Amino acid sequence: MFKFTLEATCGKARAGTIETDHGKIQTPVFMPVGTLGTVKAMSPHELKDIHAQIILGNTYHLYLRPGAELIQKAGGLHKFISWDRPMLTDSGGFQVMSLAALRKIGRDGVQFQSHIDGSRHHFTPESVIATQEALGADIIMSFDECPPFPATREYVTKSLATTLRWAERGKKAFTNHAHQALFGIVQGGIYEDLRQESALALMDMDFPGYSIGGLAVGEPKEDMFRITDFLHDILPQDKPRYLMGVGTPSDLLNNIARGVDMFDCVMPTRNARKGSIFTRHGKMIIKAARYEDDFSPIDPQCGCYACRHFSRAYIRHLIRMKEILGMRLATIHSLWFYQELMQLTRTAILEDRFEEFIGEMLPVLDRLI
Amino acid sequence: MFKFTLEATCGKARAGTIETDHGKIQTPVFMPVGTLGTVKAMSPHELKDIHAQIILGNTYHLYLRPGAELIQKAGGLHKFISWDRPMLTDSGGFQVMSLAALRKIGRDGVQFQSHIDGSRHHFTPESVIATQEALGADIIMSFDECPPFPATREYVTKSLATTLRWAERGKKAFTNHAHQALFGIVQGGIYEDLRQESALALMDMDFPGYSIGGLAVGEPKEDMFRITDFLHDILPQDKPRYLMGVGTPSDLLNNIARGVDMFDCVMPTRNARKGSIFTRHGKMIIKAARYEDDFSPIDPQCGCYACRHFSRAYIRHLIRMKEILGMRLATIHSLWFYQELMQLTRTAILEDRFEEFIGEMLPVLDRLI
Repeated sequence: MFKFTLEATCGKARAGTIETDHGKIQTPVFMPVGTLGTVKAMSPHELKDIHAQIILGNTYHLYLRPGAELIQKAGGLHKFISWDRPMLTDSGGFQVMSLAALRKIGRDGVQFQSHIDGSRHHFTPESVIATQEALGADIIMSFDECPPFPATREYVTKSLATTLRWAERGKKAFTNHAHQALFGIVQGGIYEDLRQESALALMDMDFPGYSIGGLAVGEPKEDMFRITDFLHDILPQDKPRYLMGVGTPSDLLNNIARGVDMFDCVMPTRNARKGSIFTRHGKMIIKAARYEDDFSPIDPQCGCYACRHFSRAYIRHLIRMKEILGMRLATIHSLWFYQELMQLTRTAILEDRFEEFIGEMLPVLDRLI
Repeated sequence: MFKFTLEATCGKARAGTIETDHGKIQTPVFMPVGTLGTVKAMSPHELKDIHAQIILGNTYHLYLRPGAELIQKAGGLHKFISWDRPMLTDSGGFQVMSLAALRKIGRDGVQFQSHIDGSRHHFTPESVIATQEALGADIIMSFDECPPFPATREYVTKSLATTLRWAERGKKAFTNHAHQALFGIVQGGIYEDLRQESALALMDMDFPGYSIGGLAVGEPKEDMFRITDFLHDILPQDKPRYLMGVGTPSDLLNNIARGVDMFDCVMPTRNARKGSIFTRHGKMIIKAARYEDDFSPIDPQCGCYACRHFSRAYIRHLIRMKEILGMRLATIHSLWFYQELMQLTRTAILEDRFEEFIGEMLPVLDRLI
């Protein structure tokens, strides 16, 4: 099943609920990324502890290793990785373009060589749907071509036509409507008219949700905000909008202010493993010398496992020593904070004080502390 | 406080209880190694879940990073790493000999260069005690020189004299009797008469416990067993014996059969991170192709977190991908098994059926499954 209910708006900001076979998701929502069937450094039980509602798996990576057939044999991705809450898979389009070698885009799909062993593969709009049906995530994505930035208007125009054709073919190939929801992906780069064309064409196909792809690929932030703002008035109010691959805490708030409901990004997890930790007071570089003998927690007001039991000095030591526990604790804190930020944002929207909330938060979030 | 009570013997095998400021330890006991203030991949709460009674810290490593002064400032090692059960630190003697560069052994101690940055340091029998008092572990070790294997009788004889002198000096320097227990370390290589000389001289100094050092350094297993067997009749019955740096599950049982009470080794944790997992049925190389689509747990009868929630196929995938969760799950299982093996052994001793128990277990433990 898949159902989206828009519960409240405050300006363009939205609070809603998505219902799936694996439970409800309250939006706005941030989805931790589990590239290879694990949110790096985290156990599924720790993901519940940090209040993750839904996690993401990468089709490109899982297709290559361990393979969709194996995961299907295991009973699907949920069962394979021991995660019983909602899950989303992407289409692999972004990774094929950014990671694979010698890719060749044709009418029919993309031929590429694995970034692991150079083996040759072919993704088509239909095969990508079949792979995602085998994985069994609650929300899946149409195959898309994600243009790089910068890209000429001509390139983006041509790419967009391909993506729309693929969306149509994928939608036709998709059969598992009872258990999965297939989103269309709006492309069009930084060109508003192309974004509009993309959105309207996808809306004609009537998807249960719309992803916004091709942003956070190097364009200035103002362009990203301009496009999400522009799309707010075009995309249907009664369907969720998912901005792919975004972003920092302030990116999340700025895009929620423009009507986005769903986000995913490796940033909180990847940065945490290197000791760059997001907090409600700003970004903490835990290796900094000033934390050497700082025996207070990362955030004394935080309720996460790392803050309840360990000091900055200890986590600093662990991260410097490249100890796994250091990466774990930093990841736990950053993900807890992302979830808490979304919860606070949702409450502010429901209580009709989002403007005030974002006004207070934005100046703090990007600060280096 | 420190108190050892011998509760039962079965042949030479012993079951006892050690009492410390941080709680009781039931012996025989295996101590997971927390080299740098963390048992690699584990949180302290997971260490409790796998029933760890006591963990070990390495003085050489902690002295270099983050430094004993910082740990003292944090309130001691227990507080720094958030571990409230008993802890043991070694003397650094073994690491100085095996890791440090350009070491120079004098009457007064060892001058050496750090294996990290080449910085120069000097460990003396007194400084090593002071460092361990700053760290604050419940059980600490005399500074010793650990001869390599093979070593000539002359070398071992001379080395032994040094170690005994250092033990005496360390004992004099030690002041924190109220909260810590200082063990003497029996050396003497594979030479029974030197081992006897070492043990008797240390017993004259009257330590609350005796470590057996200089084994598991490359000598044949029969030599190890011969020495522990030989020492059983010499060392006092009413003091715990700790065989340093040992070993495989069968090593533990074979040495318990010769009167050893305490063990530590990086093997279960280090091997687990590479996918070599100890089980009650033998050693499992989880990367093996036959586990690719094996959706049963590592050990279906095991109660550990890894076995309750995850399959061999999933853990194999994680370990192949070098994912942190794979290392965590393999470590959890191997440590759980080591603790369970010690608990079963203890029960067998208390129930006066150790011979039968070891007869059943030994043929299985070293098997590759």
